[in-house]
Amino acid sequence: MTDVRVAGVGLTRFGDHPDRTGRDLFATAALRAFEDAGVPREDVEELNYGNFMGSLAEHQGHQAPLMAEAAGVHCPATRYESACASAGVAVREAVRTVRAGDADVVLAGGMERMTNLPTAEVTEGLAIAADDLFEVREGVTFPGAYALMATAYFDAYGGEREDLAHIASKNHANAVPNEYAQFRSAVSVEEAMDAPPVAEPLHLYDACPITDGASALVIVSEEYAAEHDVDAPVAVTGVGQGTDRLALADRDHVARTPAAEDAAETAYAAAGVRPADVDVAEVHDCFTIAEVLAIESLGLVPRGEGITAARDGRTTADGDVPVNLSGGLKAKGHPVGATGGSQIAELTRLLRGDHPNSDHVDDAEIGVAHNAGGTVASAVVHVLEVAE
Amino acid sequence: MTDVRVAGVGLTRFGDHPDRTGRDLFATAALRAFEDAGVPREDVEELNYGNFMGSLAEHQGHQAPLMAEAAGVHCPATRYESACASAGVAVREAVRTVRAGDADVVLAGGMERMTNLPTAEVTEGLAIAADDLFEVREGVTFPGAYALMATAYFDAYGGEREDLAHIASKNHANAVPNEYAQFRSAVSVEEAMDAPPVAEPLHLYDACPITDGASALVIVSEEYAAEHDVDAPVAVTGVGQGTDRLALADRDHVARTPAAEDAAETAYAAAGVRPADVDVAEVHDCFTIAEVLAIESLGLVPRGEGITAARDGRTTADGDVPVNLSGGLKAKGHPVGATGGSQIAELTRLLRGDHPNSDHVDDAEIGVAHNAGGTVASAVVHVLEVAE
Repeated sequence: MTDVRVAGVGLTRFGDHPDRTGRDLFATAALRAFEDAGVPREDVEELNYGNFMGSLAEHQGHQAPLMAEAAGVHCPATRYESACASAGVAVREAVRTVRAGDADVVLAGGMERMTNLPTAEVTEGLAIAADDLFEVREGVTFPGAYALMATAYFDAYGGEREDLAHIASKNHANAVPNEYAQFRSAVSVEEAMDAPPVAEPLHLYDACPITDGASALVIVSEEYAAEHDVDAPVAVTGVGQGTDRLALADRDHVARTPAAEDAAETAYAAAGVRPADVDVAEVHDCFTIAEVLAIESLGLVPRGEGITAARDGRTTADGDVPVNLSGGLKAKGHPVGATGGSQIAELTRLLRGDHPNSDHVDDAEIGVAHNAGGTVASAVVHVLEVAE
Repeated sequence: MTDVRVAGVGLTRFGDHPDRTGRDLFATAALRAFEDAGVPREDVEELNYGNFMGSLAEHQGHQAPLMAEAAGVHCPATRYESACASAGVAVREAVRTVRAGDADVVLAGGMERMTNLPTAEVTEGLAIAADDLFEVREGVTFPGAYALMATAYFDAYGGEREDLAHIASKNHANAVPNEYAQFRSAVSVEEAMDAPPVAEPLHLYDACPITDGASALVIVSEEYAAEHDVDAPVAVTGVGQGTDRLALADRDHVARTPAAEDAAETAYAAAGVRPADVDVAEVHDCFTIAEVLAIESLGLVPRGEGITAARDGRTTADGDVPVNLSGGLKAKGHPVGATGGSQIAELTRLLRGDHPNSDHVDDAEIGVAHNAGGTVASAVVHVLEVAE
């Protein structure tokens, strides 16, 4: 077993890329990651790639060989699909592969194209992450599903729309300096409150946008980094994955996300850290209520207190545990199959001190990334630590 | 690093299952695998699941949590997609996970539903495994692509339609006693020769059918098997995966499959065996010509001699190296996302001596499984050995 390092990260700008193919987007992210790492692409021994709806958006399955060619690597290439957690599971397996000594260098990340489809087709495409037989055919879409989760949360623990508006406003503020973010404009709590409803209690600014984009990480063994003089100060010290039933109606909990709790428990145990040790977090805020459920599942705040954490300033940029300094899915954007890699890229930049928001987390040593699929039927948690 | 064993295998009958959902098919395969293994499902620590076109066939992505629920397991669950090699890559990662000590018991396999779609939609669905921009939009479908590969092979090494007809006839004969096979009827060389053309030089019996089905394997560590008194005489001693460019026109070779050569080289090296040691093989004969390319890439016959191997009796049931004693994709059927798991299930039964065709390979100790995606842009090779 070896220590695993993030040697380099690469992202495309998140947003609209109407003139670019998926292979083009992933190639950009991969080449930026190689450049950031100072690792030659010839050294890559495995490609782990996340994508969710390419068969619908680009009529393209079997994308891993295509992305290997686009990135200029020649090695086993595998696509992972776990809805919005696709890249998270791809990175998890990359970490396992390096830790097991099966490879010294793995390229991991993901890509999604979404804006090329009409919005109704995107909504229908995203719905395949829910249970077709028991949810989709009854009319459930993701805004509706998360609205049900928000309502259940309010019933169980209290909270109101204005609490959610504070989360939206916080994440938009964080995205302003982020060169990769889709929305770099501030949104006030009042603007969020006044936005049109999507599915009560969720309004427009409670939802993440439709986004094109790609992410790539160069994951290496500690030995490789040392031998090749690669500067890779951030280590992946813990990884966990959890699973819940796909349909909300089949769950034991709707105002909690046990898959993320399981993933966090595994990841923390592997890293030997406690939630109280975490300095900074990137979590899967596809809707504002999802950030609440995420930070509670990660143990960053006690259950029932997640709802007011942004409003109380605990998760803002200068709070106790800044959450989504990248802008989150909410404001940075959510190219589904790329998001899990993007979160780890942002966290790596934050811990290295070269993120535009790094000055808010000067002494941060431990970060956690939380990536979820569907209504958190799948969850992946990574613990990152400054190793040197 | 631990030795990895196949503790149990489960299959549905391959063929038409018009009244069954994908989750139902996979549950059947999984429960049969648990029963065969004598391992309780509560012990499963990871589910690795292959599926190719579920988002088109069942409007269902994010299938891994669904299949975990269907199989009654509660653990991290991940979907792998590598076209027709989806289950092969799922099993490869299962083997890695157990060998690395990250789990003692992994459930691996796959499922595909295809017959519920009109044939034209299946053909279009399968086409997403090819390069959309540079192949599919030009009218390439898989029968056409493999016809090009057959023509290139004939040009490079010789051969004729009748050689391919011998492969079809051999695999249909092998399927007759197999209770899981889609086609259990013999086809003579003459019948294969007289069948209507699909894409010259390939005729009807050169192509595998459209199939529903599921496969499941219980993969365990040697220690787990010993501690729990689980009878698991077959070990996975080597695994390899290879990648080629997705589009045929971008390849260095069209009459060879370097991705499978790479996968075989890695798998043989890990197992410490040579091609000459192999006693029995299950290979990816989606078209008869694919069996030729496969056995040459595996080194079971010299390059250029694969074409006559069936006609010469070398790969028939009582030949030097029986190939596709299950009936192969050709006659057993090809539920795309399940096939890689099915091959290993059949090989396990053959090596254990409880396959209806086991009497043809009484003393077999080493078997090899070859699973390919697209026109072999992806390939996975597993070496199985009788361990005790």
